[in-house]
Amino acid sequence: MTPSRGPGRRPGTPDTRGEVLTAARTSFADKGFERTTIRAVAASAGVAPAMVHHFFGSKEDLFLEALAAPFDPRVVLRPVVEGPPDELGLRLARTFVTIWEDESRREPLVALVRGAMTSEPVAAMLRDGFLRIIASVLGPAVAGPDPLLRLQLAISQGLGMELFRYVVKVEPLASTPPEELIQRLAPVLQHHLRG
Amino acid sequence: MTPSRGPGRRPGTPDTRGEVLTAARTSFADKGFERTTIRAVAASAGVAPAMVHHFFGSKEDLFLEALAAPFDPRVVLRPVVEGPPDELGLRLARTFVTIWEDESRREPLVALVRGAMTSEPVAAMLRDGFLRIIASVLGPAVAGPDPLLRLQLAISQGLGMELFRYVVKVEPLASTPPEELIQRLAPVLQHHLRG
Repeated sequence: MTPSRGPGRRPGTPDTRGEVLTAARTSFADKGFERTTIRAVAASAGVAPAMVHHFFGSKEDLFLEALAAPFDPRVVLRPVVEGPPDELGLRLARTFVTIWEDESRREPLVALVRGAMTSEPVAAMLRDGFLRIIASVLGPAVAGPDPLLRLQLAISQGLGMELFRYVVKVEPLASTPPEELIQRLAPVLQHHLRG
Repeated sequence: MTPSRGPGRRPGTPDTRGEVLTAARTSFADKGFERTTIRAVAASAGVAPAMVHHFFGSKEDLFLEALAAPFDPRVVLRPVVEGPPDELGLRLARTFVTIWEDESRREPLVALVRGAMTSEPVAAMLRDGFLRIIASVLGPAVAGPDPLLRLQLAISQGLGMELFRYVVKVEPLASTPPEELIQRLAPVLQHHLRG
């Protein structure tokens, strides 16, 4: 992790990526999403800002990679905001349940929530980064006053349900078919988001 | 923790209580609530079953003490099931939020959920013991098919909200007045429980 590199070492090796990610994680955890800059992360990793952009894209991209986010909300949630507003709850319920049914995503999600429950830096990354990116995508589809509060209540319902289902493993919730969960969540999410 | 005691030692000292609680915790975590018996806990602690009953009451009482439960669902939730059925969601929302607003109860609740997230024995005590006792009180007030599932979805909404509010501390949820939360939760809980 030396800022100056020997002449025989090419920039952009896997080490560089790792150093940038380590610097990014430290900054996001310590300073939060808003006050983290690509410039400062690059300086901390001893590379040029352009290289961080080249490797990771935007600050959001870098954040999602640093968090090892199990999905990109900007991609996964885009279809949720498109479509009839009176089925917003249904689309969000379906997307939410589908993500959690995917084992390759469920385990990192559980790890993320577990981390947030036990570590303030991880909670800060969830709160100020991940939930903020989710809100930036879903927010415009929410109706009524206090859209952010509505969104947080909807997500907290989904998350609470998945924790009961997959971590606490309480029956019958743990073995309820996904489609039934979607149908049960949909009206509740619709109420939170647009009721 | 010897089963035979010296003649100078009276039964029922604080040590006895502690030994019974330790034995109870081990049994509830290993065997679950259903298969734990007062008789086996007493034997494991080297005391008479009557003494366990004398100190702790029923198996439910012993369990709640072993879990260091921050409230007794049989006491706290009793008023929730009494009253007009169309305000069940409102009464549960009010009770739920009120419990979490009480700092002396919130911290052990967070500890319990944190424990359940990271330790299977604690998850088992939450699942097979605490939630079961809650269900035994609230279950009769739930209407429609799958009452247990309805109850679990309602509780998961409340719990998810409180975790976002007090552990993740996401704004504006973290600083929303309790009465507003009650009003927002009430229709959702009503829908889960009787919709």
